[in-house]
Amino acid sequence: MTRPVYILGGYQTDFARNWTKEGKHISAMIREAVTGGLASTGVEAREIEVGHVGNFAAELYAMQGHLGAFLVDVDPAFGGLPTGRHEAACASGSIALLAASAEIEAGRYESALVVGVEQMKTVSPAVGGDYLGTAAWYEREAKGVEFPFPKLFGKLGDEYEKRYGLKDEHLAAISAINYENARKNPKAQTRTWYMSNDHACGSDQYNAVIGGRIKVSDCSQVTDGAVALVLASEAFATKWAARRGLTLDQVPRLLGWGHRTAPLTFDAKVEESRGNPFILPHTRRAITDAFGRAGVADCWALDGIETHDCFTTSEYMAIDHFGLTAPGESWKAVEEGVIALGGKLPINPSGGLIGGGHPVGATGVRQLLDAYLQTTGQAGAYQVEGARRFATLNIGGSGTTTCVFVVGT
Amino acid sequence: MTRPVYILGGYQTDFARNWTKEGKHISAMIREAVTGGLASTGVEAREIEVGHVGNFAAELYAMQGHLGAFLVDVDPAFGGLPTGRHEAACASGSIALLAASAEIEAGRYESALVVGVEQMKTVSPAVGGDYLGTAAWYEREAKGVEFPFPKLFGKLGDEYEKRYGLKDEHLAAISAINYENARKNPKAQTRTWYMSNDHACGSDQYNAVIGGRIKVSDCSQVTDGAVALVLASEAFATKWAARRGLTLDQVPRLLGWGHRTAPLTFDAKVEESRGNPFILPHTRRAITDAFGRAGVADCWALDGIETHDCFTTSEYMAIDHFGLTAPGESWKAVEEGVIALGGKLPINPSGGLIGGGHPVGATGVRQLLDAYLQTTGQAGAYQVEGARRFATLNIGGSGTTTCVFVVGT
Repeated sequence: MTRPVYILGGYQTDFARNWTKEGKHISAMIREAVTGGLASTGVEAREIEVGHVGNFAAELYAMQGHLGAFLVDVDPAFGGLPTGRHEAACASGSIALLAASAEIEAGRYESALVVGVEQMKTVSPAVGGDYLGTAAWYEREAKGVEFPFPKLFGKLGDEYEKRYGLKDEHLAAISAINYENARKNPKAQTRTWYMSNDHACGSDQYNAVIGGRIKVSDCSQVTDGAVALVLASEAFATKWAARRGLTLDQVPRLLGWGHRTAPLTFDAKVEESRGNPFILPHTRRAITDAFGRAGVADCWALDGIETHDCFTTSEYMAIDHFGLTAPGESWKAVEEGVIALGGKLPINPSGGLIGGGHPVGATGVRQLLDAYLQTTGQAGAYQVEGARRFATLNIGGSGTTTCVFVVGT
Repeated sequence: MTRPVYILGGYQTDFARNWTKEGKHISAMIREAVTGGLASTGVEAREIEVGHVGNFAAELYAMQGHLGAFLVDVDPAFGGLPTGRHEAACASGSIALLAASAEIEAGRYESALVVGVEQMKTVSPAVGGDYLGTAAWYEREAKGVEFPFPKLFGKLGDEYEKRYGLKDEHLAAISAINYENARKNPKAQTRTWYMSNDHACGSDQYNAVIGGRIKVSDCSQVTDGAVALVLASEAFATKWAARRGLTLDQVPRLLGWGHRTAPLTFDAKVEESRGNPFILPHTRRAITDAFGRAGVADCWALDGIETHDCFTTSEYMAIDHFGLTAPGESWKAVEEGVIALGGKLPINPSGGLIGGGHPVGATGVRQLLDAYLQTTGQAGAYQVEGARRFATLNIGGSGTTTCVFVVGT
C-alpha cells in the first residue's frame, strides 16, 4: 500500500434488536453507530474528514436512499463532510471500506468514518427474501422464487457433494460452532438462543427445510444492525496513539486486501470453475491477493478468520478456499476441531453471520471491527488468545463479489 | 493529487431511448455503454483493472441491486474484475468517479472503467417521483408528497427571491438555453423537442405547474441512460497515448475535485446558510475546493461548465456559486449572454439535464464525458471553441451531496 491505513476501533449495535419494533428510523441506527464509534475510539467528530456508508438495499427495506448524507445529521461538526454510500449486495460494507481506505492511501484524507448499516425487520421474511433476490440476477434467479438465496447456497453444497462428497453433519457442526461462539458475544443476535449439533443435524418441525439442502440451522439471521469503524493515516494514527498511551505498532493496520467479482449467476460460476479444484476460484483469488499484499504466506500465519457464513455452505467453502485443507476436504478441519474457538485456526469466534447476525450492508464492517477487537485483545469472552493477525472474508451474492482483508499489528 | 488520473474517453447511450419499451433489462444498458466505451477509447477489456458503477436506485426502478457485478457479464476478459456500486442520489455517478480515481491515485490499479446508469422509464411518472423522494429525507420531505423534488427546488427559487429577488423570466431563459443547446447534441433526449423562451415563460396548459414555482419547462427529464468512461494512471495513459498517436499532454486529466455534503433536508440547509451570501455554502465550498486542488484562481480560468440543472433553479444557483456573478446576481450572467454557447463562460453546452436528459446515476459520468469531449475538441456541434479546461457540478438531493471536477489538458 502506498500509505498505510490504521484501524482505530469502532462500535457495533446490539444485533438482537428490532429497530422497527422500537419505532426507529434507519437514521437512528446510523446515529448510534457513529456516536458509539467516536466515543469508543476517543476521536472527535471534528477530526473526521470523510464518511463512507455501506448499505445493500435501504431503498427497498426502508424506502430511503442517499444514506451517506445521514452522517451529516449526526453531529454539527460533520457539516460539509464528504460522504457516499457503497454497495455490492452482502459485501457492501467491504466496498465502503475499500473506498475509504483508498482515499486515505491516496492522501486525500487523514481519517475516515465507515458505517455499515441494514434495517431488515421492516418487512415479512417472504418480502425480505424477495428483496435479497436483488443481490442475485433477480429476473433469472430470484423472481417468483421463494427464498432464492438458501436455494442458491444449497446449490453450492450440491456442487461440493458432486465434486468431492459432502455430509450434512459437517454443515450442522459448522452451525453449532457459530451458535456456540455467539453465546460468548454480547452483541450477537442469537446469544440467548439454543442450538446444538444434534438439533442442527435434525430435519423436523423444529428445523425446517428452507430450500434445497438448507435448513433453518444452516441460515444466517435476518438482522437489524449498524457498525461504525474509524480508519486513519499513519500521521493521524501516530498522534491518536500517543494520546491513548499506545505505541503505533499496537494499532492494527490493513495489511492487505483482495477484491474480485465472479459472474453473477450461480450456474455461470459453476460452469466457469469446472475442472478447477476451487468451486469459487475468484473467491480463492481474492484470498491469495490479500495474502500477497499482506506478505502472508498462507492461512497458518493467521490467528483467526471472520468469514461470511450466510449459510453453512459458504463457511464450508471458505475453509478450503482459505487453504485450511485441500480443496473439497473442509470437513477435515471441522472434524479435527481446527475452526473451533481454541482450535488451530478459529473461524468466526464472534459467531459469524449464523450466530452473530447478518445485517447485510453492515457485515463487512462488523467483520473488520471484530478483527480489530481480536488483534488488540479486546474481544472479551470470544477472544482468540494472543491474536495478532486476522482475516475477513465478505461475499456479495452467490459468491459474486468477494472482499478480503488481512488485519494485524 | 498523489498520482494524476487521466481520462481516455467513453461512450454515452442515446438519452432519447426508452429501454423498457425496447424490452431491455438494465444490464443491456450497461453492456452498450461498456462495449461502446471500450470501442471508442481503443482500450481492450483485458486492460481494465477495476470497474465502478454509479447508480441511484435500480433496486426500486428495476428490482436489481449489485450492479457492479453486471460488468463481469459484459466480456469474458472481465472474469474476476473487482467491482462495486456507488450512490449519493443524483450525484451517484460522481461518487463512482471519486472511488475509481482514488484507487488509481493510491496506486491500486492502472486503469478503471466507470459506468453511470439509470433506467427510469420502468414506472409511471408519479411512482418515479415517489422513488426520487428517497434522495431526500423520505419520511420528512417526500412521503405522501406528489413530485417532491420540483417542490424542493422550487423552494430554492423562493429562497433566492426572498434574499435577492428572482424573476421567473430568468429561469425560463435558462431552460430555453438548455433546450437550444440540446438541439446540437445527437445524444440529447430533447434534441427534436420544441421549447422557446416565450414558451418557457408561459404557464398554461402546455407548460403546467408541477409544484411551487416549478413548471414543466423548469424540469430535467425522466431519462434512461448509461455512460462509460475509462480512467487511467500516467503510466497507462502514456502507453495509450503513444498507440493513439497522441502526446500525453493532449490527454485530459482530473485537475481537481471537490466533495461536500450539506444537511439532508432543504429546510436545514436554509436554516444553516442564513446570513451566508451563498444559499448552499457547502456547494460553494466543493467548488472552491476543486478550484484549489486544480490550481484554478476562479471560474474565468474555465472554458465551460457542465452543471446540474435538475431544475432551472439549480442552474441559477450554480451561476453565482461558481462565481460568474456576485451572490444573488445570477440573472446578470443570463441576461448578458455569458452562459450561452458562444458566451464568455458557456454552461451546459450539451443541453445539461433539462435538454440532454437526467438518468440520475449516469449524470455525473455523462458530465465528465462531456468535459472530456470538450477539452479534446470532439464535442461536435456543441463544441466550445478551443476549450482546454472544463468543470462539472453534480448534485445529489436538494443540494445535499455536491461533487465537482475540474478537467483539463
